[in-house]
Amino acid sequence: MRMYDLIAKKKHGEILTDEEIAYMIGGYVKGEIADYQMSAMLMAIWFKGMTDHEITKMTEIMAESGDMIDLSPIEGKKVDKHSTGGVGDKTTLIVAPIVAACGGKVAKMSGRGLGHTGGTVDKLEAIPGYRTVLSREEFFNTVKKCGASLIGQSGNLAPADKKLYALRDVTATVDSIPLIASSIMSKKLAAGSDCILLDVKTGSGAFMKTLDDSIKLAQTMVAIGEGAGRRTVALITDMDTPLGCGIGNSIEVAESMDVLKGVGPVDLTEVSLQLAANMLYLVGKGTLEECRAMAEKSITDGSAFENFCTMVKEQGGDDSVLRDTKKFSQAPYVHEVKADRDGFITHMDAEKIGITSVILGAGRETKESDIDFSAGLIIHKKYGEAVSKGDSLVTLYTSRQDKLPDAEKLYREAVEIGATEPKKVPLIFARVEKDSVEKF
Amino acid sequence: MRMYDLIAKKKHGEILTDEEIAYMIGGYVKGEIADYQMSAMLMAIWFKGMTDHEITKMTEIMAESGDMIDLSPIEGKKVDKHSTGGVGDKTTLIVAPIVAACGGKVAKMSGRGLGHTGGTVDKLEAIPGYRTVLSREEFFNTVKKCGASLIGQSGNLAPADKKLYALRDVTATVDSIPLIASSIMSKKLAAGSDCILLDVKTGSGAFMKTLDDSIKLAQTMVAIGEGAGRRTVALITDMDTPLGCGIGNSIEVAESMDVLKGVGPVDLTEVSLQLAANMLYLVGKGTLEECRAMAEKSITDGSAFENFCTMVKEQGGDDSVLRDTKKFSQAPYVHEVKADRDGFITHMDAEKIGITSVILGAGRETKESDIDFSAGLIIHKKYGEAVSKGDSLVTLYTSRQDKLPDAEKLYREAVEIGATEPKKVPLIFARVEKDSVEKF
Repeated sequence: MRMYDLIAKKKHGEILTDEEIAYMIGGYVKGEIADYQMSAMLMAIWFKGMTDHEITKMTEIMAESGDMIDLSPIEGKKVDKHSTGGVGDKTTLIVAPIVAACGGKVAKMSGRGLGHTGGTVDKLEAIPGYRTVLSREEFFNTVKKCGASLIGQSGNLAPADKKLYALRDVTATVDSIPLIASSIMSKKLAAGSDCILLDVKTGSGAFMKTLDDSIKLAQTMVAIGEGAGRRTVALITDMDTPLGCGIGNSIEVAESMDVLKGVGPVDLTEVSLQLAANMLYLVGKGTLEECRAMAEKSITDGSAFENFCTMVKEQGGDDSVLRDTKKFSQAPYVHEVKADRDGFITHMDAEKIGITSVILGAGRETKESDIDFSAGLIIHKKYGEAVSKGDSLVTLYTSRQDKLPDAEKLYREAVEIGATEPKKVPLIFARVEKDSVEKF
Repeated sequence: MRMYDLIAKKKHGEILTDEEIAYMIGGYVKGEIADYQMSAMLMAIWFKGMTDHEITKMTEIMAESGDMIDLSPIEGKKVDKHSTGGVGDKTTLIVAPIVAACGGKVAKMSGRGLGHTGGTVDKLEAIPGYRTVLSREEFFNTVKKCGASLIGQSGNLAPADKKLYALRDVTATVDSIPLIASSIMSKKLAAGSDCILLDVKTGSGAFMKTLDDSIKLAQTMVAIGEGAGRRTVALITDMDTPLGCGIGNSIEVAESMDVLKGVGPVDLTEVSLQLAANMLYLVGKGTLEECRAMAEKSITDGSAFENFCTMVKEQGGDDSVLRDTKKFSQAPYVHEVKADRDGFITHMDAEKIGITSVILGAGRETKESDIDFSAGLIIHKKYGEAVSKGDSLVTLYTSRQDKLPDAEKLYREAVEIGATEPKKVPLIFARVEKDSVEKF
């Protein structure tokens, strides 16, 4: 078999066999196939696509290129969740304890933030003492005891994806649905859960800018998951506007606790309940309606919040900051950005708002940057809301007073105030299950 | 400027600016742009193509990446010729002396054969004593004295093309008209002639299998030549059937001398006269009809043949083998392949016939192989001719008796004998000049 012939096949839109895909990915990981051949193949895939069968096979081989985590020592069905990344997306901190409180099992490894979107591991590390690195045994024991454990990525998960992603990143082949889907799903398959809930973000702050593309990506990932024997569902959720009001690490933990206490922002609460209900549905806790009711109850009866506190303590964290979020260390500089006219919020640019939080110190500009856990912002006026001149649009929090002018300037650019009330946008656009797409 | 952005532009079908093309080719030659980025770009070009302006700019920059030969010390207009490669194509040996005898100037560097097609330099080296390596001064002086000089490629011509071709060869991006055209024309621009005649072969033995693709390639190359200030014409000629009857190095020299003496095969004579007439037309010797008449006269009056003998002697060769081609050293093994039935030659596979000659020793299977100048074959029955059982189809010549069975077997596979006379095929399908295509 020669890589040359596989490139020629794909550029003519032909379908690669299982053996050819195994040869290609295996040879690339071993260094027997050169970067310049793989990049030509990636560009051919960018143009010609792949069938669901090809993508599933490729994803399985990418997953098997490294550690395959065996979660079977943990009883019951394990459910994972993946978000394609959004600004203010702190739903993992909310849905893990809800699902655990309702009897599901969440053994989840999360990533760090880079660029304009945050990462769950960074948010968790804002909780004093919380250990995001656990041994395999500690991780399993935490799930067994609490129903959930949230840690950072460990081990050698899908090294084929790491190598391919690095190549895509420099050859303009990132934005290909087969390649995005196989990249995400290879890590999910390797992470070992039985069921996978995908949160595909759509809109200005998301990688997928249109609903059609988001649905196509969701369908592809669902096909991969189901093809690989994992029950998989995807929700398409809005990322034109940041989710919730808080952006920044301890700020997002605090807001998540508000949701678990039943006093969180409506949009974040609603999306979190839908995600949690679908995760419970996937592990077989009942119909979607029944699962939704269970999830709601876990908030009203306080069981989800207590579950989170127990997990945090189990992983060495201080739960007193969760019970009273004012105890989080506070940023020394606080600045209000006020509306300069009357009107309605007619547009929010989620990406620019994410970058505003990075300027304030909440994110990292390079992999090596340090994070200021107390930095960030709290939005007071969201999309569609009426504002009067002088109203506070947002509060900025930082340790770097000199950054405030740039941050205010960018935030003002990100938010449009218009004369007429804009039309409402749904929080959740669609739900994709094997062989079905339900649009809302 | 970043190569990443140029790849992204091209994959979306956008047009690269002159500066971007200069950055891309310059950076690649200097090693500042990696192979894996260039191969992604080549695949994007394979899918999206390039405008004539983009291709011309790229070709000029590829030409300027190495030596640009300055032929201005030679008075008068110099005309080059390029064939895209065919089996039995020995026209350079015929048209150079015709053009020279009629007052044109041909300062031509040719290549060696590889695979199923021969190379002019190998054929010339079948003439005892002929030197294909001359100093720049000797080369110019030969053209000044004889009107023509045929030598091997020397100097560092279009190194950008060498590097790009090597990459295309392993990434399945050879068969792209913009890339083929820029590869050929970069070397022609660097070789310094004022005018260029292109012989684009079409059919089973050629790189371009269809007339449409051949015309497209011809138009692209003519646009590049004219865009770079060189008068350029292309003929699309048949390569479904080998040209002439002889294949093999001294065999082809002998057949070329037959044409120059007015006793050559009809097809080879006709194509050579058309090529020579167009070359004379390009350097301004008159209308095409007038140039054709001049070319014919140079054969009937013997001036073209004498011109070739003079050039050969000037370059150290023995012209006695040209005057009496039986003096060429003869292959020890001669074998007739006879028709096994009555009928007509309904198909000849030029590529397989070329490979037959390589088996006999006439070509090289790898770059390092030695060539047997006396090996090859002479076809007695060509496409469309009637044959009777027992007629000789071809005579095989070799120094390796053990190769005869394989050669005979392949030749029989290459030639079909059918019951009914097939329809005639033109020798020349089309002529492409700036902004015009004339089909015959």
